[in-house]
Parts: sequence; C-alpha cells; structure tokens
Amino acid sequence: MSKENPGWRGAPPVEGAARDELALFTDLYELTMLQAYFDEGMMEDAVFSLFVRRLPARRNFLLSCGLDTVLGYLESLYFSDDDIAYLRSLDKFSERFLAWLRDLRFTGEVRAVPEGTPMFANEPILEVAASLPQAQLVETFVMNQIHLQTVLASKAQRLVTAAQGRPVIDFGPRRMHGIDAALKAARAFYIGGVAATSNVLAGKRYGVPVAGTMAHSYIQAHNDETAAFAAFARRYPGTVLLVDTYDTMAGVHKVVELAKTLGENFRIHAVRLDSGDLLTLSREARDVFDAAGLNRIDIFASGGLDEDAIADLVAADAPINGFGVGTAMGVSSDAPALDIAYKLTEYAGRGRLKLSSGKPVLPGSKQIFRAEKDGQDVGDTIARATEDGPGRPLLVPVMRDGKRLPAGRVDLEAIRHHAQAQIARLPVPVRQITAADPIYPVTVSAQLARFQRDIEQEIDG
Amino acid sequence: MSKENPGWRGAPPVEGAARDELALFTDLYELTMLQAYFDEGMMEDAVFSLFVRRLPARRNFLLSCGLDTVLGYLESLYFSDDDIAYLRSLDKFSERFLAWLRDLRFTGEVRAVPEGTPMFANEPILEVAASLPQAQLVETFVMNQIHLQTVLASKAQRLVTAAQGRPVIDFGPRRMHGIDAALKAARAFYIGGVAATSNVLAGKRYGVPVAGTMAHSYIQAHNDETAAFAAFARRYPGTVLLVDTYDTMAGVHKVVELAKTLGENFRIHAVRLDSGDLLTLSREARDVFDAAGLNRIDIFASGGLDEDAIADLVAADAPINGFGVGTAMGVSSDAPALDIAYKLTEYAGRGRLKLSSGKPVLPGSKQIFRAEKDGQDVGDTIARATEDGPGRPLLVPVMRDGKRLPAGRVDLEAIRHHAQAQIARLPVPVRQITAADPIYPVTVSAQLARFQRDIEQEIDG
Repeated sequence: MSKENPGWRGAPPVEGAARDELALFTDLYELTMLQAYFDEGMMEDAVFSLFVRRLPARRNFLLSCGLDTVLGYLESLYFSDDDIAYLRSLDKFSERFLAWLRDLRFTGEVRAVPEGTPMFANEPILEVAASLPQAQLVETFVMNQIHLQTVLASKAQRLVTAAQGRPVIDFGPRRMHGIDAALKAARAFYIGGVAATSNVLAGKRYGVPVAGTMAHSYIQAHNDETAAFAAFARRYPGTVLLVDTYDTMAGVHKVVELAKTLGENFRIHAVRLDSGDLLTLSREARDVFDAAGLNRIDIFASGGLDEDAIADLVAADAPINGFGVGTAMGVSSDAPALDIAYKLTEYAGRGRLKLSSGKPVLPGSKQIFRAEKDGQDVGDTIARATEDGPGRPLLVPVMRDGKRLPAGRVDLEAIRHHAQAQIARLPVPVRQITAADPIYPVTVSAQLARFQRDIEQEIDG
Repeated sequence: MSKENPGWRGAPPVEGAARDELALFTDLYELTMLQAYFDEGMMEDAVFSLFVRRLPARRNFLLSCGLDTVLGYLESLYFSDDDIAYLRSLDKFSERFLAWLRDLRFTGEVRAVPEGTPMFANEPILEVAASLPQAQLVETFVMNQIHLQTVLASKAQRLVTAAQGRPVIDFGPRRMHGIDAALKAARAFYIGGVAATSNVLAGKRYGVPVAGTMAHSYIQAHNDETAAFAAFARRYPGTVLLVDTYDTMAGVHKVVELAKTLGENFRIHAVRLDSGDLLTLSREARDVFDAAGLNRIDIFASGGLDEDAIADLVAADAPINGFGVGTAMGVSSDAPALDIAYKLTEYAGRGRLKLSSGKPVLPGSKQIFRAEKDGQDVGDTIARATEDGPGRPLLVPVMRDGKRLPAGRVDLEAIRHHAQAQIARLPVPVRQITAADPIYPVTVSAQLARFQRDIEQEIDG
C-alpha cells in the first residue's frame, strides 16, 4: 500500500494465470532472441516504445489503460524451476542460458502516460528502457494487457458518451473473451465512465460497484409471471423487474397490478426491457406507468445495445433511464483489435527504426506535449524525450530499477476522475462518437523528424 | 489421469483467476436469484440448454470447444470464506443463505457434444441438469468459456481451410483479449487444425507445439542486417529469417549472399515476409532463391492475414509455404462474439420456454441426431432427449453427480482428430469459407415442435 495513494490496491496476485507462471506468457521468439542476445553479449540498454499505429474507423481517440497490470507483472517477473524445465524440454536452449534466465528479473525503467489519458495515433502509451533482453522479453505480456484494456476503456467511453448522463452498466462477462478479459473489462469500463458491473469477482478484486437485475430463467421457473414478480419484489425492495419474458406490455401491466395489490409495500425501482423495439416499448411502458400514477418507476433497457443504438434512443428522447450493455462493449464489436506495436527505438545509445512498408517507427525516447488554449486541448506534439515542447508533457516515470514510483500507484477512483477530466478537455467534435473532421492535430517535432531522417540515411548508407 | 484416456491432462489449476476464486466469476443477479430460490424453496431439478441462436454472417457452422474447462470448473466449484465475506459486505444476502452457499457444490449432470463437433444454429452444445440454484449459478462461467473457445476454434478452422494444407501458425497472443483468451486460443486453434502456437505457456500447459521465428527488433538491434542474419543462423540452424525490416528484396538478396558465404554451413529453413504486397514479394523472392539454387528455402508469410487474404494468395498460387496469423484469428475479427444463450428449458418436470421477441427457446432436454448418407452428413434433427432420431446422437453424458464420466476426459490429440474427421464429413459447400447455399439442413422433430406448442398454449392460457 502506497503512502501517497491510500486507495491503490496494487495489481492482483493472479492475472489469467497464476502470477508465478506469467514469465512463460511470451512468444517463443522472444526467448530464442534472448538466447541469441545472451550468446552475442548484446546486453546494453534498449528503449522500446508502445503505440497504436492507426485509430480504428470512426474513433477520434483512445483511452489508455492497463498500466497497473503491466507494472505488477514487471515487478514480479521470474522464471520458476518448472518453467526452466519446460524450456529445457524444447531442446532449443543451452544450460548456460537457462541458468541466466532463472536469475533474470526486470530492473529497468518505464515511462508512461497515466491510465485514462486520451491518446492518438503513433503516440507512445509507454516506453520501456532496460537491458535489451529484459525489454525484449516483456513484449508479449505488455502488449497483450495494454491492448486489451485500452480497447475496452476506449469502447466503454463511447457508450457512456452516447448515453448522455444516463448510467451504463456492464452486463458483458458471459460473452467477453475469457476470465481475464471480463475482469480487466470491469475495471477498464469503470475508468471509461461505466457506473457498475455485473461481475462479482471484479467487484471483489477492484472495488467496482456491482449491480444486477433478474434473468428470464427466474420468471420461467415460476408457473406464473406475477407470482415471480411478487416474490422477487418482496425479497428485494427497490429491485428491477424483467418484463419481456412472454409479452412485454402484458408484463408492464402485471407490474401495475402488483403495485395496486401491494399498496405502500410496492417499492420496485424499475423495469427492464430486453428485447423488441425498445423505443416504442419504453414509450408505451412509460405511458402505462404514468397513467397508473407510477411516475417514479424507472425504465431500464438492454439487449444488443451499442453506442449507435443508445445514441438513437437518446436522440429520439426515449423514456429510458439507464442502459445495460453486454456484448458490443464487452468485445468492442466494431474494433475488437488495435494496430498496436511495441518497437525497438534505441539500442546502445543509438536510435533505431524500421522501414517496413506502412509500418514506420519514430526513433529514440520520446515525449508527448499536449497544448491547451482556454482550458481546452488543441493539439499534440510528439518530440524527443530531451526536448521542451509546447504544452504539458504526458509521459511520466512510473518505474525505476524495476520498482514502482509513486506515479505508478494510482487508485482506481483517481484514474476514473483523471479520464473524465481529460476527455472533457478535448475539442467537442473529438469527444463525439462520430468521426471528427478535422481530426485532432498531432505533429512530430522538427527535432524528432530530423533525428528520424538522420537514422534513415545511416541505414540507407 | 483417466485410465481410458492416458493423454488427458485435465483442466489446468488456474483459469484466468486462481481456481479458488472462480465461484465469484458470476453475474450478481445469479446470486440474488439463488437467494430468492433458496427463500422460496425452489430446489427442484432444472435443465438449462446452451446454444447459439444464429450463425455469424458467412459462417456455415461452428466448431464446439471449451467443454474440458467447464467440467473442470464444475468439479471444483465452491465459495471460500473470503468469497462469503465479500458477499456479506454487499449487504444483500442473509446469513442463512450465505451459510448454505458456503456448502454448495455442483452435483448435477452434464450432457454435451464432444469438443470439436461442427454445430449449427439452435443446436444445444451442452445441457446442464441439476437443482435449479446449481444450474443457474454456473451460467456466467459456462457461457463465457464455451463462447470464447467456440469462437476461436471456429475461426481457426476457417484459416486452416483457406490455407489448403499449408501450415497455419498462431502468432496472436499480443493482441488477443487477455491472458486467459490467449491460452485457451492456442488449444482451440490446435483443435481447429492450426499447426503450432508462439505462446510458450500454452505449450507448457496443453502440450501444443510451439514455434516462432525472429522479430524486427533483433535485426534493428544489430548495426547490420546481414550480421544479424548470420548470428541468428549460426545459433539456430534451420531457422526462419525475417527479411522485411528495411527493404524486403534487399533482405532476400542478403540471405542469398549469406548462403554463398556459409556454403555447406548454410541451413536456413525459410524467410518470413511480414509487410507489403505478399503475392508479388513472394514471387520475386522465390525467383531470386531459385535462380541462386536455393530451391529448398521456404517462404513464410505473416502480417494482417485473415482467411480471405490467405484464400486469395492460395488462389493466385503464391509461392508461400506457410502462414503466421495473429490478430484476425486471435480476436475472430469478423465475428468476435456469437449470439450464445443458456436458457432454462425445464423445471420441476415441466418444460419451460420464453416468448421474447426474436429469442425463442426449445423446451426440455434435447438430443441432436445427425443423419448421414454415403459417409457424408446430410442433415440434423433437434429432438426431445427421449426420442430416437434419424442418424447418430451427438449429445453424450459427460458428467454425473458432479463427477466427470469417461466421455468428459478426452485428450487434445483425440479432440483434434475428431474435429478434422467431423469437418471432413460435412457437405463440401458447408466446409468452405464462403456462405453455403443452401445451408446445412437442421429441422426440429415433430415431437419437439408439438411439445413447444403445448407449452406456449399453457403460457398463453
């Protein structure tokens, strides 16, 4: 527990695999390259930069997420005897190398933008500076987690934007890609502005608020829908009743009947619509409730919703007070993957890049400067780390000598607040769920551009 | 270890969270419903059926996957004291209920199709028969894992089909959705016909072959591309050299020079192309190698490949000997989610369904019969479990009294063989990556249709 940030919980002890198995969560080529570096004595310092090459269609920015997980991994990275035994069985590694690997720990430096920072194409989300083998080895895990969590936080922010202040609840665990994704999602969604999750383990692990209503099976298991409503309402005053199991409007009328029967004891908070034409049904249900004097019953909607469906409902002024969102948010259906890269930009004091078609790399350690005018962000400059730039620098040291610095220990509420505040500073068109025109301006500094040209010429020469 | 299936490894001890935390991997409403069932004394037997309502666009079938994980979870499901303490903190649960939950174990029955079975819309992949609370509680985990692994196995099978015998290698861990997804993927892909994975932990855990080449960073870290090739080739005879870091064809020529320099000691297996126009580059590289007498050097391609890109390359007769596939397979980019459902179909001896718009449920325990003609599958019938049907039944008991039966312990090689054999029995158009017309015929038996109508009338009445 950090003294500076008493709410910080640290990375959890398990991350999709027991913590002590994670060293092997790597691509085989990382280990064969490590052995080659070891044999060739290539142990000097390297810098790797993690960035997204292009934003997905219709996206104006991404919301960075996943740093806490990465730092937790780096702090505890090691190969167990069991791992070494498996590697030995592959018949690719020398005993000298395996002995060295057994003792390897991450002792490098990480600079990163805080979680919950809006990011644009080619901007480094984090940079790892460490001996070449250390910085190389961690590629797979670092990319996997920053990618996943950034995909999810970025998507969630779009649904929250579309809902214009109505709460969005995460109902996605059943269709997300595995346990790790569903856990990290609840945290990433909360950073993106989602109000609560249905995922109980995520609630326990991260302290995210948990919420839920009832399933169709509960209604079906009773021989009578009204009896099911009555039993659940008695057990859970202030609950939400699911009304679409058989016929939505008939279900709504049964809720009204229940209100009459229970009188003062009727304390239902809301009904949930989960299928059909949500606009029409929400209006009809609202009319029925209002006519019965049940103005205080809220209407909650779910069922295949994405940001466009929510925006349409909001634009049509649908009387819906909150949204439950599952699959579209849970797998980021319009953009389930980002063109993310983790690239060597410096080795042994020399800038490095590649020239592969369509995949350029900006060399060296970098900084992003975000310029503002009248409290609004107006443009970014990607510069060399040693430059002074126009605006505030976004990358800060979060780990040194393999240990977290205070900026690497931020509690979840603070990250959520940071995200909302940073998003609010973006130009209005950039904050929308439709493509901004013009896009947010990001330029490369003259110094960095010159450095890039110099190295290209070195390679060509 | 099962005597019947000596190669079976059992579900691993961790699954995206420590095994002993998984009971809380559930939607909150499962637990509130459980408490309501408990209070109402609704403890009779229930049947839940898991199926996919619709196939994604362009998909002719799905490949079932994930059963082993589900059975491992059901065998070991329990709430720890720590879990109970967290639930208590939510202030929603009675001490009586929590004490009961603390002792809950899964003691029910599971019937399922074997992993690696081609499946169609509305066909049950598995059915859980247990006391209502037990069968309800497991919904979130069961759906999450069958969904994830079926999504991935189904996608992999398409890439393997497109590659027409050329090996497909999984390079996806860095962009898959989390650690759990990347681990389960390697296993699911192997079932779908993928040859190997880059994921070392998956290799250790599941025994899937591991493979890899080299990254751009290895080339970049050397001051000279030829020196990098020479060093790696010396260390790893039979390796694959990545030639596109700076200029692909220049890289190819450097490999030829290296062959001349090393003479008999040159034992490179292949080069990898990772960017640019793979068709043109592969032809040019092939020509250069052949002209230099290096006919035995293979060409391996990667970089944003999906099944369509591979099919195009194969159709154009590109001289490519194998494919490395990452993101498109790893997140199933064209269909990252399925319309999967886990629905109550029977409670207390009575068939159950729902009538929600567009989301019908077939009541009761069911069986799928797959009919064949001349060694080819020609059509399925979804029937009541008690019926005899035309063809072989697909659902078999895999768990009874909470314990696995022999059919629930199948080793990975056997599952992979089963999948390939079952796919080979499908009609040729159904096996293709383009939409079959007509689609594979699936009908509901007369008895099941009558049963469904009877229950609908009961509800309407």
